[in-house]
This record gives sequence, structure tokens and C-alpha cells, in this order.
Amino acid sequence: MTVSEHRLDGAALRELVDGRWAGVRDELRGFLRGEPFVPVAGIGTDAHRQRVLRQLRELATTSVPGHGFPREHGGSGDAGAAIVAFEMLVCDLSLMVKVGVQWGLFGGAVHALGTQRHHAEYLPPLMSLELLGCFAMTETGHGSDVQRIRTTADYDTDTEEFVVHTPDEAARKDYIGNAARDGRMAVVFAQLSSCGQSHGVHAILVPIRDSEDRPQPGVRIEDCGPKGGLNGVDNGRLWFDRVRVPRTALLNRYGDVAPDGSYTSPITNPNRRFFTMLGTLVRGRISVAGGAGSASKAALDIAVRYGDTRRQFPRPDTGEEVVLLDYLSHQRRLLPALARTYALHFAQEELVTTLHDSAVGERPLDEHGQRELEARAAGIKAMATWHASETIQTCREACGGAGYLAENRLTELRADTDVFTTFEGDNTVLLQLTARALLTHYRDAFGDLDPLAMARFVTGRFVGALIERTAARSLIERLVSASPRRDEGEDLHDRGWQLRLLEDRERHIVEGLARRLRRADSSGPEAFDVVNGAQDHLVHAGRAHIERIALEAFLAAIDRCSDPDTAAVLERVCDLYALSAVESDRAWFLEHERLAPPRAKAVTQSVNELCRELRPHAVSLTAGFGLPDEWLAAPIALGAERQRQHSREG
Amino acid sequence: MTVSEHRLDGAALRELVDGRWAGVRDELRGFLRGEPFVPVAGIGTDAHRQRVLRQLRELATTSVPGHGFPREHGGSGDAGAAIVAFEMLVCDLSLMVKVGVQWGLFGGAVHALGTQRHHAEYLPPLMSLELLGCFAMTETGHGSDVQRIRTTADYDTDTEEFVVHTPDEAARKDYIGNAARDGRMAVVFAQLSSCGQSHGVHAILVPIRDSEDRPQPGVRIEDCGPKGGLNGVDNGRLWFDRVRVPRTALLNRYGDVAPDGSYTSPITNPNRRFFTMLGTLVRGRISVAGGAGSASKAALDIAVRYGDTRRQFPRPDTGEEVVLLDYLSHQRRLLPALARTYALHFAQEELVTTLHDSAVGERPLDEHGQRELEARAAGIKAMATWHASETIQTCREACGGAGYLAENRLTELRADTDVFTTFEGDNTVLLQLTARALLTHYRDAFGDLDPLAMARFVTGRFVGALIERTAARSLIERLVSASPRRDEGEDLHDRGWQLRLLEDRERHIVEGLARRLRRADSSGPEAFDVVNGAQDHLVHAGRAHIERIALEAFLAAIDRCSDPDTAAVLERVCDLYALSAVESDRAWFLEHERLAPPRAKAVTQSVNELCRELRPHAVSLTAGFGLPDEWLAAPIALGAERQRQHSREG
Repeated sequence: MTVSEHRLDGAALRELVDGRWAGVRDELRGFLRGEPFVPVAGIGTDAHRQRVLRQLRELATTSVPGHGFPREHGGSGDAGAAIVAFEMLVCDLSLMVKVGVQWGLFGGAVHALGTQRHHAEYLPPLMSLELLGCFAMTETGHGSDVQRIRTTADYDTDTEEFVVHTPDEAARKDYIGNAARDGRMAVVFAQLSSCGQSHGVHAILVPIRDSEDRPQPGVRIEDCGPKGGLNGVDNGRLWFDRVRVPRTALLNRYGDVAPDGSYTSPITNPNRRFFTMLGTLVRGRISVAGGAGSASKAALDIAVRYGDTRRQFPRPDTGEEVVLLDYLSHQRRLLPALARTYALHFAQEELVTTLHDSAVGERPLDEHGQRELEARAAGIKAMATWHASETIQTCREACGGAGYLAENRLTELRADTDVFTTFEGDNTVLLQLTARALLTHYRDAFGDLDPLAMARFVTGRFVGALIERTAARSLIERLVSASPRRDEGEDLHDRGWQLRLLEDRERHIVEGLARRLRRADSSGPEAFDVVNGAQDHLVHAGRAHIERIALEAFLAAIDRCSDPDTAAVLERVCDLYALSAVESDRAWFLEHERLAPPRAKAVTQSVNELCRELRPHAVSLTAGFGLPDEWLAAPIALGAERQRQHSREG
Repeated sequence: MTVSEHRLDGAALRELVDGRWAGVRDELRGFLRGEPFVPVAGIGTDAHRQRVLRQLRELATTSVPGHGFPREHGGSGDAGAAIVAFEMLVCDLSLMVKVGVQWGLFGGAVHALGTQRHHAEYLPPLMSLELLGCFAMTETGHGSDVQRIRTTADYDTDTEEFVVHTPDEAARKDYIGNAARDGRMAVVFAQLSSCGQSHGVHAILVPIRDSEDRPQPGVRIEDCGPKGGLNGVDNGRLWFDRVRVPRTALLNRYGDVAPDGSYTSPITNPNRRFFTMLGTLVRGRISVAGGAGSASKAALDIAVRYGDTRRQFPRPDTGEEVVLLDYLSHQRRLLPALARTYALHFAQEELVTTLHDSAVGERPLDEHGQRELEARAAGIKAMATWHASETIQTCREACGGAGYLAENRLTELRADTDVFTTFEGDNTVLLQLTARALLTHYRDAFGDLDPLAMARFVTGRFVGALIERTAARSLIERLVSASPRRDEGEDLHDRGWQLRLLEDRERHIVEGLARRLRRADSSGPEAFDVVNGAQDHLVHAGRAHIERIALEAFLAAIDRCSDPDTAAVLERVCDLYALSAVESDRAWFLEHERLAPPRAKAVTQSVNELCRELRPHAVSLTAGFGLPDEWLAAPIALGAERQRQHSREG
């Protein structure tokens, strides 16, 4: 019996996918209904912004704003719920991003970087939307390189005020959500100085509009104008002309200026201080990864349902027109993407759990753990957002002309998520961050890569320890050790073989990187060339790491599945994920003689077979994502095509 | 001396790129200027449609409309010029597509499928825009499979009229340009019948609006509403409720109905007749490929200029911030795409030349030549439009947040070209067409693949003849035979080796296909499974073919280059094209033992080196495309970033 004949238990699948925050998901499935939340297309920028603000105000009446904030200020202190709620806002990604700006970035910065006085004053009104705010970090001249932003905040000892200033055009704040229309205050990131001393980047609260929505004196605001998507969000630019704010406006958790201008910080190393401050903002990246995941799910749900009804070209034997999803090329487009969407979903759930358990104090992270969380957040954000762009595009093409109509939502999902690949960190930069963290693990294990350590390292004797397995460590170890190490002869579906293959790739790439980058240890002119020459290598390391992490998360999830038939189908979906990951990087496996040519060809063959085997489950698998029809809204996914075919037969 | 130190001669490069229709390009560079044609963003659907119609009316006063039509009706009979003019309309792709609908599809169908009476009556007013029209082929239920559309045109002998009818919802005409607002007439594709006999798909002229823009009796029109792009084009749906048109409305070049209802055609085989009729429409696909090329060029021009000025992150040694295009990962994103854009440009030029010389009777094509032209048009359309989607997306990401602002044009180019991958034929279907044509070549050479032929075929003795080289045949043969056949030891820049490698891949894939598909010769139930299982194989064959054709076209172009230094730089660009094509398919070369692992790694290394070597020429190479600044319009490409950096230093 192949899994084609298994019955997927929809309830068991939903339970597994919904995971720990199923309640939050269900609440939003119930709430985001009816006219106020139905997706609309082509309504123009002004109407769209108004609509999204209305939706935001509706949401403010629910439990959603409170999740991310502490109980003593009226929140519920459920960090995981905050991220899961964000990812459910797939009825309009402008709403999702507006929520992220208001309660995630603006509120999150006040919470994470501010202290009691800021929390008491600002958290209640920002939850209720009495106070809308901005997160003014990015400047026109500096996006990814936050450490070099140029807005200044100089302390004036005489008046006990900070003077916030934009020194030149490149230092204006740019692409700032809530700035063009709704925000009244901004968390402004600036180079702090007092008593002639520079203290590096800090965040400070600056009012930007008065109660009648006029810009505050000294603040200039410009609308960024139409964008490639997300036009329900009012992105804008901000300039500050020596704007004065009181000393207490500094979000002073990681650095404070006393009335006399003296600076204190709980973290003495300025570099570590900066990265600690940025690290508290990791939720933003995790949220974006979740949002990208939802968009991929919605697009797949639409394309799979359409592909399951749409017919084109007759079979030569019967003359009957063939359903698109019965074509191998159509399965190839949609099903590996579906499998990867599942893998990333479970990896995301694991990430959210780690963040949550640390945030609520259940399982606090040590420095190593925090660094690992940040590295995974960066990597999963990059992989999930690129996956969304590719997947939604594929789904659009798979729906042909119908996919190009705005009413079918795919073009909007595509346009809205496009910027996800570069905001909250450019993906190429983020994957390099992930890879650098892996190298740091190496350094932890071997000190500063002294020659002796390097020698051991190259012999590979100590290398095994460096692959740090995820939460499901014991399960993964069991799977790896249960499989015979015959390699070439092995079943491609053997889980231990798949795991070893992805672990081995990651280890080999990271080792190679470590060797290359040692040469850049000096800070001479050649250092840049060495690191620059290794950029693609770094990106590949980051990818390999996340693909392995996601495989482990997928396996851990299957292990939790309550229904054996459903688990059996998911095992095949997981095979499809693993083998299509191997297939798409099989040049590497061949070049490094991890796969012989016949076996590499067998991987491709096996992906084809898995597509055929899983095809009957495609609709149930996308249904497992639990996106209500009202959010999909696309007529082609909701029966229009079936109806047309019936009209024709009738 | 590496080519980094060569001087590109801008005039020589422009001359080469402009090619045979340089005059047409220059005319449009001069004409499409000032307010009427400047790109605008976010103006809303109605305003956009009006603007595009005004632009179309401006164009109607130039030589543009006449290019595609014969002299005796006021045209200039220059088919090549018509396609080149189309591809130059990059200031707004809605205008490009509107031109394509009016003069390419609607006008082209009247011209190619009609006869003298239609030409005399309709060509002059459709050129002058007195008559706007639609090309009503696609139906909601049938896009790629035109042969099975369901609109009917039944001949009524009593009244000597055709009755055009939409039998059901799936048969409504859909996504039809000019239908929602401007069109007064449509070329309607329908199943023709007379005297109770069916004659297959034919085209017939049906008035859809009267002189006051009201729908004609029996015609229902609906707006397709907002789309993912091209919102300056008024796409709509059409239903016909037993609409009567005179017998002479039939475009009767390939099939006619006499007053008594008897049917005649110069082509007796109905299948051949259908494909001959479709074949006359090959210009549409060639035009779309050209338009996609222009969009890729514009995006690269914007991203390369920005990447050449934008700085991010300091060098560790000097502290100076690094220009983005000095990063390997940035070069990797943009330069191989630039090289491929050049290759496709020259392949396109060759295709246009072949079409033109045949259309004007200079070098008429025999049946084999016509089939080859159609196969190449299909394949180049698919490759060029996917390349555009990927390249523009890459450019958008390479410009970060600035790339997401509509004013910088990348998101609009991306959204507008998106549908190019599925209209005028779904790319996946088109590449299979290309591959099938290659198989037909095999059949031409070996009869119906009888077992003996197959045996010879497998031994490979006769296979060399099947790689049909392009126009530059003798040049290519010279290059191939000049290179020593040492393979593994050879220089990766050796042109003969590159050519042999791509030829060998194509031959091997097509041979394998022929063997697989033989099994589908019967029309039993297994036939579908065999063909279906080979779909990816077919698509790969199509890709391999077009990549080889494009390499040959690139070489032929370099051979025409008048300036040796410029030619030397283009040789390296061509290396980058060839080697990055090999790199991206290196899994295949490794699996089929065409490349050993060390050599495959050397290919990747060589792509990196070429990127470094060509980086100093990047701006000149995009300037070679000859797109005026006014069409790019993007502030980030036109000095805004440089100015900001200066404002900061000053």
C-alpha cells in the first residue's frame, strides 16, 4: 500500500500544524471575518490606508495587542502568541505589516529598550492605539549597516535635553511605517553623545506629530509614495532639525545619560552593547518569517485547489481533458514547494517556542543560546522569505491568466511579500550572519582556531560535535544511528541517510569556510578580498544549516502526530522536502563526491515518484494550513472553475 | 593585460547592439520624450488607461503603426521594424502591450488571416486608430489549448451570415486587451461550421461596440478588473449571444465558406491548417521576447548604476565604505544576468532577422524553416520572459528598500512583465513545443524512428548532423574545429570547448527523449504516462537548445563588432554567459560525466573571476543597451544616491 491510499485525518493534521498556539489561531479565524476584513483589490492608496487603519482599530479590541506586552501594563505576556497572531493576518498583508510596525517594532522597542517609566507611560496607549508610533531605524544611506547610521542625539547638559538632528540627506529616516500618515511618535535610532563623547547607536522617543496631526516643530515628514506592494501601510521619511526632547525620552535599558551628562551602561563593551540592543529585536525577523510562511501557504492553497479542478489538453487515449495537477510538470511546480512550506512551518514553530520560553522565563537562554536563536532567526527569515517569493510566483504562473487577475490574490501576495526579502535585514546579509554564527561555534570549540586546533579540525576527528542538533536531539540521534551506513546501496527514503547527508554537507561547508577565513584574520588589505571572495560560500553555509534544521523540525513534528495514517503521509512529504533539497543542490553533492552520478539521478527520479504518490493528498495538505476560505477569497480557489465546467456539461 | 583594462568603445557597442534596425531605435529614442511619455507611478487604473490611449494616439502619428503592414495599404512592410519598435516602448509596458494588442495581434490577424477585402477595409483605420480592436482567442476554459476553444460560428445559409455564440461560461473570451474600454471590433476565434459540418478553429470579425461605445446587441462585455500589472491596458471578457455577422466577416485566407455554405481551404489537412494559421501569429511571441528583453535591460541599467554608487559596510583595512558592486555577491547577482541579457538580445536579433527576411520575401522559409522559426520563437519567448522575471526581481532586491519604491520602476517592471511568462503561450508548454520540434528534426533525418534508425541513432554515428547550427554556421564550425579536443585539460575560456559542451548536452538530452517517447508511440493508456513522465525532460531539452542557439548568436555578433577592444570585452561577457549557463546546469554535466568534479568547481571559480574582471565595465555594458535616462526615470539610477553622498561629504 502506497501512501496514496492512506486517509489523511484532517483534524489530526490541523492539530499538529496549529501547534502550541492553536487557540490564538482559532480566535483569529473567528474574528477576521466579514466585510471589514475581506481582501479587496485595487482600491487605491488612500482608501487602502484608511481601511487598514480601521482594521487595526478593530484588532485593538481583541487580545492581539496585549500578547507581546507584560501583564502589569495590561498585556498578557505571551510572546509566542504575539508572533503567531501576526502570521495569521493573511487577509491583507498591509494589515499584517501595520500590526508589526505598531505593536511589534514600535511597541517592541519601547518594551525591550525602555524601562519602567516608558512602559507605564506608553505601553497602554500604544496597545489601545491612542498612540500610533514609528520605528525609525533605517536611513536612506544606511539600511543593513545600522551601526553606521548618522542621525545624532546630542545631550545638552544646560537644558537636560537631547538634540535630535539629521545632518544630511543620506541620514534622513526612510521607508518608516506609520510615518506618512498615522504616527505621532517615533523611536528614533541615533548616534548618542554627551559631554563630547560618543556612545554609539541608541533609541530615543521623539514626538513627530501633534494631536491634530501636524508635524512637530523641526520635524519634516514626507510620504514615500506608491510602493511595489503593501500600499495600505503609510511609509514615510523623517528629517529632524535640532529637535529637542527631554533626557527621559532616551530608551535607557542598555545605556543612560545622567542629568550631568555622564553615561552609564550595564554592558561596557560598546560593540556587545549594540548587538545586545539589536538582539532584543529578533522578534521582528521571526515575525517576518512567519508572515512569509502564511503567504506561501495561501498561494499554495489557491494554486493547488485550482490545479485540482482546471483541465487543459485531452488525454490521447480517452480524449478526456486532463486535470492540471495530474501533469508531472504541474506537480513538480507545486508539491516540492508545499513540502518545503511544511518544513519551514515546523522550523518556525520551534523558533517561536524557543523565543517564547526564553521571554517568559521558562527556559532562559544563555549567551550561546541567544546567539543561536538570532542566527536561526536570521537564516529562517531569509529562507522563508525567498521561498515565499518563489512559491507565490510559481503559483501565479501555475494559474495562468487567472492568476494575474488581482481578484485571485496571487499577484498581491507576491507584491506584498516582495520586500520581505530585504526588510528586517537583506537576505544575503542575513545568511552570512547565520554562517558567521556557525563559525563562532567552531571558535567556541577550538579557541581561536590556532594551528593545532585547525589540524585536528581538518582531520575531522572532533568535527562531529559541531553539528548542534535541534530540540528533537534524541529523536534525530536515534534515526541516524538506526540506519545502516551503507550509503550507495541505501534506500533514498532512509531517514538516517538523509540526515547524515545534510549534516555532512553543512559540516563540510563550514569547515571549508573556516579554513578560508583564517586567511582573513589579519586586518590588512587582503582581509577584505578573502572575506569578499567567500561571500557565496557563507551564503551556502547559511542555507545548508537552515535546511538541516528544518528537516529536524519536520521530523520532530511527525513524531508528535497523533494519527498514524496522517503521520505516514507526512513522512512522505518530509521525504519530498529532503530529497528535493538534495536535488536542488545535487551539483554540490556530486562535486564533493557525496553522491555518485547514478544515485543523483535516482534522487530526481524519486522526487518525481513522491510527487505522483502525494498528488492525491495535495488538497488535504493545503487544507491542513487552516486558512479560511474568506481569507483566500480567490474565486478560482472557491469553486468558480468547477462551476464553469459544470455549466458546460449541464 | 586583463579586459578590466580595455576601453569599451561606447559607439561601437551601441552600433552592434542596435543592429539592423538602429534607425527605428533612434527614432523612438527621439520621439518618446517629455511629459506624454515619462513613466508615472500609482496613477490608478482609469487615469492609466486614458494616459496609455493618449500615448497610443501620439504613436499613431509616427511611422510605428505602418511597419507591420503592406505598402499598398499605407504601411511600410517592414516586419522587423515592427517588432523592434514594440520592444523599444519600455517607458511604460502598458503602452507596449496596448501597441501589441492593436497593431500586432488585432492588426496582425486581419493582415495574416484575412484577404484583400479585409485589408482594404480595415488596415488603414486600424493603423490610424479610427478602429480599435481586440484579438479574442483565449477563453476562460481554454488558454494554451486553442484547438479546443468552444465559441461557435455557425453559417446560416438562408441569411448568408455567421452566428457567433458563447455556449457556456467556460467559453467566454477572457483577458482580452482593448475589450474593457476601447475596442470596437474583435477578431474572434471560433469553431466554424457550415452545412452541419465542423471545420475547426477560424477567425472572424465581430463588431463589439457601436460608434458611441455601447456594446453591440448580443454582445456582453465585462472588465477583468485590476491585474497584477499592465493596468494601463483594458482587459475584458466577451460573451456572444447568437450575434450575426455577414459571411464576408470570416478572415478567409486559410478557409472560406461560399454563399451556399460549402467550405474550401488551400490546406486540406485540418490539423495542418490550424497550425499554419497559428504559425502566422508567431510575431506575437517574438515581440513578447523582445519586450521582456527590454525590461531586463532597464532593470539591470537601474540596478547596476545604483550598485556602482551605493555604499554599505566599511572595509576592515581603510574604514572606507564599500561600493555595493565591489562585493562578489552583488556582482554574482547582476553580472551573469547581464551577460545572459546580451546573449538573448543577439538571439532575438537573429530571430527577428529570419522572420523579417521571410516576411518581405528576401529569404522565404520552406516548411522546415518555418517550423524551426516557430520552435525558436517559442523557446526564446519562454527563456527571455523567465529571465526577465528573475532578473528584475534580483535587481529589485539588489536595490533594497529603494528598489521597492514605485518611483524607481523596478516593481512596476516586475509586475508588468510577470504575465509575459504565461501569455502568448505558457512557458512550460512552449519549451515542450521547442523540444518536440527538435524531435521532429530527428524524425526528418531518420524517418519514423524505425528500429534500424534507432540503432544507428544510439550508436551516435549520424547524430552530428542533427545539431543545426544558426546563421553563423561557418564561424561556429571554425571555432569548434580550431579547439583541441582535450577536454579535461582545456582552458575553460576555449570557445570550441564551450560550444561542444552545449551541443553535446543538447544532443544527449534529445536522444534520450527520443528513446523515451518511442514508448509512447501507441495511443494506449500508457502513452499519456510516458509523455507525462517526460515533461521535465522536454522542458530541459528546450532550455538546452535555446542556450546553445543564444551562444552561437552571441559569437556571431562579436564577430561583427568593429572595435577590437570592445570585442575583447564582449568575448569575456560571452564567457560569463557560457560558463554561468554551464554552472547553473552543472549537476547535469556531472551526472552525465561531461564534467569531472574538479572541473565543475573550476567553472564556478571561473564565473567568480569573470565577475571581478568585468565589474569595471558593468556601467558601460548596461549603457550599451541604449535606454535613455528619461525612460529609466528611476531617481536612484540618475544621481540621487551620488548627490546624497556628496551632500554628506560637503
